[in-house]
Amino acid sequence: MDNAIIIAPIVGVLALFFALYKANSINKVAPGTDRMKEISSYIQEGAMAFLKREYRSLAIFIVVLFIVLAIGISPKTALCFLLGAIFSILAGYFGMRVATKANVRTANAAKEEGMNKALNVAFSGGAVMGMCVVGLGVLGVGLLYIIFEDPEIITGFGLGASSIALFARVGGGIYTKAADVGADLVGKVEAGIPEDDPRNPAVIADNVGDNVGDVAGMGADLFESYVGAIISAITLGIAAYGDSGVNYALALASVGIVASIIGVFFVRGNKDPQKSLNTGTAVSSIITIIFAFILSNSMLGSYRPFVSILSGLAVGIIIAKITEYYTSADYKPVKRIADESETGASTNIIGGLSVGMMSTGGPIIVIAIGILVAFYASNGATNAAEGLYGIALAAVGMLSTAGMTIAVDAYGPIADNAGGIAEMCDLPEDVRKITDKLDSVGNTTAAVGKGFAIGSAALTALALFASYTQAVGLSGIDLTSPKVIAGLFIGGMLPFIFSAITMEAVGKAAFSMIEEVRRQFKTIPGIMEGKATPEYGTCVDISTKAALKEMIVPGLLAVVVPILVGVILGPEALGGLLAGALVTGVLMAIFMANAGGAWDNAKKYIEEGNHGGKGSPAHKAAVVGDTVGDPFKDTSGPSINILIKLMTIVSLVFAQLFI
Amino acid sequence: MDNAIIIAPIVGVLALFFALYKANSINKVAPGTDRMKEISSYIQEGAMAFLKREYRSLAIFIVVLFIVLAIGISPKTALCFLLGAIFSILAGYFGMRVATKANVRTANAAKEEGMNKALNVAFSGGAVMGMCVVGLGVLGVGLLYIIFEDPEIITGFGLGASSIALFARVGGGIYTKAADVGADLVGKVEAGIPEDDPRNPAVIADNVGDNVGDVAGMGADLFESYVGAIISAITLGIAAYGDSGVNYALALASVGIVASIIGVFFVRGNKDPQKSLNTGTAVSSIITIIFAFILSNSMLGSYRPFVSILSGLAVGIIIAKITEYYTSADYKPVKRIADESETGASTNIIGGLSVGMMSTGGPIIVIAIGILVAFYASNGATNAAEGLYGIALAAVGMLSTAGMTIAVDAYGPIADNAGGIAEMCDLPEDVRKITDKLDSVGNTTAAVGKGFAIGSAALTALALFASYTQAVGLSGIDLTSPKVIAGLFIGGMLPFIFSAITMEAVGKAAFSMIEEVRRQFKTIPGIMEGKATPEYGTCVDISTKAALKEMIVPGLLAVVVPILVGVILGPEALGGLLAGALVTGVLMAIFMANAGGAWDNAKKYIEEGNHGGKGSPAHKAAVVGDTVGDPFKDTSGPSINILIKLMTIVSLVFAQLFI
Repeated sequence: MDNAIIIAPIVGVLALFFALYKANSINKVAPGTDRMKEISSYIQEGAMAFLKREYRSLAIFIVVLFIVLAIGISPKTALCFLLGAIFSILAGYFGMRVATKANVRTANAAKEEGMNKALNVAFSGGAVMGMCVVGLGVLGVGLLYIIFEDPEIITGFGLGASSIALFARVGGGIYTKAADVGADLVGKVEAGIPEDDPRNPAVIADNVGDNVGDVAGMGADLFESYVGAIISAITLGIAAYGDSGVNYALALASVGIVASIIGVFFVRGNKDPQKSLNTGTAVSSIITIIFAFILSNSMLGSYRPFVSILSGLAVGIIIAKITEYYTSADYKPVKRIADESETGASTNIIGGLSVGMMSTGGPIIVIAIGILVAFYASNGATNAAEGLYGIALAAVGMLSTAGMTIAVDAYGPIADNAGGIAEMCDLPEDVRKITDKLDSVGNTTAAVGKGFAIGSAALTALALFASYTQAVGLSGIDLTSPKVIAGLFIGGMLPFIFSAITMEAVGKAAFSMIEEVRRQFKTIPGIMEGKATPEYGTCVDISTKAALKEMIVPGLLAVVVPILVGVILGPEALGGLLAGALVTGVLMAIFMANAGGAWDNAKKYIEEGNHGGKGSPAHKAAVVGDTVGDPFKDTSGPSINILIKLMTIVSLVFAQLFI
Repeated sequence: MDNAIIIAPIVGVLALFFALYKANSINKVAPGTDRMKEISSYIQEGAMAFLKREYRSLAIFIVVLFIVLAIGISPKTALCFLLGAIFSILAGYFGMRVATKANVRTANAAKEEGMNKALNVAFSGGAVMGMCVVGLGVLGVGLLYIIFEDPEIITGFGLGASSIALFARVGGGIYTKAADVGADLVGKVEAGIPEDDPRNPAVIADNVGDNVGDVAGMGADLFESYVGAIISAITLGIAAYGDSGVNYALALASVGIVASIIGVFFVRGNKDPQKSLNTGTAVSSIITIIFAFILSNSMLGSYRPFVSILSGLAVGIIIAKITEYYTSADYKPVKRIADESETGASTNIIGGLSVGMMSTGGPIIVIAIGILVAFYASNGATNAAEGLYGIALAAVGMLSTAGMTIAVDAYGPIADNAGGIAEMCDLPEDVRKITDKLDSVGNTTAAVGKGFAIGSAALTALALFASYTQAVGLSGIDLTSPKVIAGLFIGGMLPFIFSAITMEAVGKAAFSMIEEVRRQFKTIPGIMEGKATPEYGTCVDISTKAALKEMIVPGLLAVVVPILVGVILGPEALGGLLAGALVTGVLMAIFMANAGGAWDNAKKYIEEGNHGGKGSPAHKAAVVGDTVGDPFKDTSGPSINILIKLMTIVSLVFAQLFI
């Protein structure tokens, strides 16, 4: 045991205290008028009610899997699993609780004190989420490693984190898009009322959705990436460098947390919110890189692992840039989709789909090169395991400043919600302008966050895959074996099935939502004149029920299929399955995220007055693409990121069943 | 050398004579009125002009690759390549020449003599195509094997067939869909004139497109599948059973041809054209199965290889059934898309995409099981190579009756064209009814054909992949090697990029077509009253130019990328690339074909009067889906089938460069 191992949980606790401090600072901000408090309480209640019901459903799953693990694998693994699940739930819960407080206060800060204070409140809300995620992650992994001193057992913690993440992402994604599509198609398109209009019965569900999908879902997602990367680095680090390998991974995570806390202080309101966020991110990255460099030599006796870390960071940044190219209206692809909207919805759809497919090229080549660099930079000094450790380090490197990345990411939906509240409470025009500005900055940072999410998912899944082959004792997985090919086909298919199920779930839920909104417009007298209050609760209920019902099948699929294939066809075929799922999963995730983003921004570009602007035939075509893109980019796409990691970690935890 | 090897080319010549006989019988049918002759000559001239220009472009490619092969690999391989390319071109040329004669004669037969004779003429046209493909295939492979007695050299023949097939499929696919989308969006949707109306300037281009895409493109496609399967069976057969392995594969092909010829005689006009076609197909399949069973024991001394063949057939039939379930309006998925059309184009698109993705599940599981059965049924008697030979046999088994399958497949577009001519020449209502009936039967048989095309592509590519690993002398390809993973990612990405490029090409070409049709409607006086003839030639020209220009990049991609990866990253990484492309290629091909088919039939289902029928909002939404589905199912999807085989055969031919 070494200092770094003891320091890690301490730094974790530090992060949690910092989160508490930030949360308190938000609480001190005034929540505004009574109307604002009322609307905000609707959102908060809806969100909390959803989380509670979601956690109640998940409790059954957790208990069943706990028993299976305790009997089938080991009670210690089961315990780690339980803790991983609980920590993931806590991260989501705290993060969202604060986010739903921060949104109304952001709106009020924009109204009372202007842009600087509003940015400050919104970003503080995101920071609480970020610190909860990294704090709980490092605390959990660190403590459990100190207690059990066995990387195999702590994979259980990763399993807990991953399985909750999948349910949270799928459930949250269905919730938010059902509400969004329902609110848009009837409210905006049919009834012609603006976004976030309080007369729209689905407006509260829509705002709740932003919280449960973009805040809680995203938090659980990044919690599992973060934890998964550290666990795979620990597993592979022992094989490569013994204890030093573990120490370095945990030291890197600890440094990243401290650097993120420092970075947070650099995000101060000044004229350009984008610049503030960039400064904060840059500060934490630079600090982390410097220490990664120094520690690489002092702890592992070589600068080679540092090169692996750098390659991971480079992958994240380049993917983010490519993502921006394909999804921002400043570049050709989105402009072309806008052009193609002039000849109707079909050409808009064909354009978006082909932009999405085309956008897989750059990131995949970058990932492929990143894998080779991360492996060969670290490989060859003493044993081959070092190369695999290099891949895990690349993932940890990308995620080490997750505290900051998540803060920047979670800030977006808070600003978005603040705008919604401003609209619903009829706050002055310039308040909405501030929140719109903050929101649009959030959209850019979200694209960057997605690049990191996809890149880190690919590298983490690959590192976990390497851990899996070690765990089942395979010296290699032979692609020319028919079993492996069969596994590869089945694994490759799963992201398609998974996307189909989640998209269909959104379609179905949106359909019920549309019917309900139409019903309320018809049957509640005075609703359109703003004299009667719509029944927000029924819409919230439709989204909640649909999300809880539809998240079950895809969630179970991810857990059950790998175990079945491992038991029936053996560990090599399961290896094939994991590789197949990894490849098509990454491809589908990029394709769906970028197609969705491109459609969204093509619509916004037209709304800015191009190609005839709002209400033109081109705009109507672009709305079709945007609606198709909603489940693409916010439900199916991000869930696949988790799917590929969850299936790998399931295989890793249950490895002994397949040998 | 054995009898079977000498018999094969003789049977090939027999097939060609039979094709000649059938072609003569079509020529004897009267082509109808002067107007019919005129319209038909437009179509024939347009189609032939396209083919000639396409072949001229390809000549450059063929010459360059011939020189590269002669210098880089061997002059013998180069010669085989040349012959493969020429034979593929001949198959496409003859098949289409006859198809463009058969269409007008089918229309006239329907007018003068009724359904029976019309079926007879249309099917005879298809049979010429079928017999040309299998005749030239077996003749080429058989002769070259007799001359060179070296399976490595004759892979050159497969390379020639595959590369021409890719260009023909991509070019034909772009041609036909640009014309189709252009004709539909302006003619049907904007101007409100019916399909195949002679006032539509794009109508001739549309009908030409059916020939160059669905007849010539499909013929080249199946020529390469057929040749590829036989070549891989020869390569793997030698390793498994020596000369007997080669003999059995060629014997199977020969038996299949004779059985197909017999089957053709069983397709006689009676009341139900579907039944006639089914009888013919059943007769040829049963004859083939019986001889496959007998020969398996007498030539290879075991019934085990026969089981592999059966598993291949089962895969084809089950995939066809699953395809029917997801794409026919008789079942839930298409009906659900029709339902979802009521809430607009977005829900129609989401529905179609998710049906397409979901439809990958069944076929992939069937393919995975088929691979395992084909391998393990044949494996284990004397050496491991027998299992791989089993996979190749499964592919040959599926394709042995290709003569019949293609005849049934190619009959569809001939009937479709006959209907177009009937419409354009104002033939009586009941003529159109007959051709419509024949056409709708063609749609069902096309779905079955697609199942076989996808299944055989997967098995053939896998068998070629096995041949590749033998050729580069790899005892295995290790999935845990970072180079293989990098290759897997890059390979997996290629079908996405390929689809993006081809879809975008259709979009661009359709856009020009739309502009041109709109221009003609505006500037040619009297065009809408039928007083002035539209300028058909300019539309034909737009499609031709677009197809020739846009087929180049995807075609080169398929040839250049595997060579680059093989040279830079080595043979193992290239193996990873091929496996990655195989998996996502099969997935994307199924997804796109079935989504397209489902959208098409959902639209037709609504047109039959459901959900408000023609002109209703649901119908408008369904038209959007159908138009998106056009490039999915007729351009990108089928091209991917060839892509995965072409890349494997490129790697196989150039194997010695990577070692």
